[in-house]
Amino acid sequence: MPRYVDPDQRRTTVAEALWRVVLRDGLEGASVRNVAQEAGLSVGSLRHYFTTQRELYVFAMRLTAERIEQRLQGIPVGDDAREVALRGLTAALPLTDETIAENRVWFAFITRARLDPTLREIADHEYREQHLLFRQLIAYLVDEGAAPADLDVDATATELHALFDGLASHGINHPEHMPAERIYHTVEHWLDQMPRPPR
Amino acid sequence: MPRYVDPDQRRTTVAEALWRVVLRDGLEGASVRNVAQEAGLSVGSLRHYFTTQRELYVFAMRLTAERIEQRLQGIPVGDDAREVALRGLTAALPLTDETIAENRVWFAFITRARLDPTLREIADHEYREQHLLFRQLIAYLVDEGAAPADLDVDATATELHALFDGLASHGINHPEHMPAERIYHTVEHWLDQMPRPPR
Repeated sequence: MPRYVDPDQRRTTVAEALWRVVLRDGLEGASVRNVAQEAGLSVGSLRHYFTTQRELYVFAMRLTAERIEQRLQGIPVGDDAREVALRGLTAALPLTDETIAENRVWFAFITRARLDPTLREIADHEYREQHLLFRQLIAYLVDEGAAPADLDVDATATELHALFDGLASHGINHPEHMPAERIYHTVEHWLDQMPRPPR
Repeated sequence: MPRYVDPDQRRTTVAEALWRVVLRDGLEGASVRNVAQEAGLSVGSLRHYFTTQRELYVFAMRLTAERIEQRLQGIPVGDDAREVALRGLTAALPLTDETIAENRVWFAFITRARLDPTLREIADHEYREQHLLFRQLIAYLVDEGAAPADLDVDATATELHALFDGLASHGINHPEHMPAERIYHTVEHWLDQMPRPPR
């Protein structure tokens, strides 16, 4: 009796093989043939799960986005709202081997998305989702009395979102200049500089 | 008599042809053959100026970096130090067709640099140069009395550098969500939120 393989599980395994290829050779090395080889599958087997390279890319890009979003959303609860924000933000930034890998793959997809309308739609969708999370985070700080009630939530969220992606890109592209502690310290500094509500 | 062609001028022309190819097809489309065609040269003529594809990439990447740096450095003088900073920062951000093109080419090179030690050295060098400019800008604000004397110049410059690159990447990758006015407004907001020196 043939072993049953959960198709979703198999697709995730293939996407993870694609990540390894991207980390090693860039997205330009992630041909169906190379990814199949990395996943230990024949090209024919891989085509059973992903008919085209684009389908594979779309699946892998969405999976990457989901993982980053889950980290951002998994903001822990706590008494000190700024501390909670710090932990949420730094959970998704490239401070560990795992988040460095996720961020590198994500930036490779974002760069490619400029030239591919399907990937671009995913990139734009994810931008909006993330932006919403940053707004929620700022609104949470205001609600908890950790930021002034008259704070411009939209401008502050837009600033934090850009700072976050800038730190992520510095962390993965210039790790010698921007090691984990420095990324962490910069987020801390930003939160410290944020205006405090009047007592 | 054969027409004299200034080799530096010709190299710049070729690098500009490479930019057009990158903007259209990404760096993965920028083969020596495609760039030669875009520049209206034979592959043999192009090889007269750039022996290898890498030489061409190195030249084009440095030229891109120089142009971005010149914009950042060309900070105008003026009476209001924050206004001067705003003008300097926004001159290099992707707010015009020209700066959008420069930033898109630059990010394509940065992504590729992860996988190429020669390009990576240029990327790291440029990171350090830009970081110095951000430090100088913050020091200028402190000197002019537009920021408090006890401001943490290093942390603030690191934050501004990341914010700058995050805004640049949002501007080129998500122009519908991050049009020029919004980039401009976010820089303005950051400068407004900066602590003021005690009177």
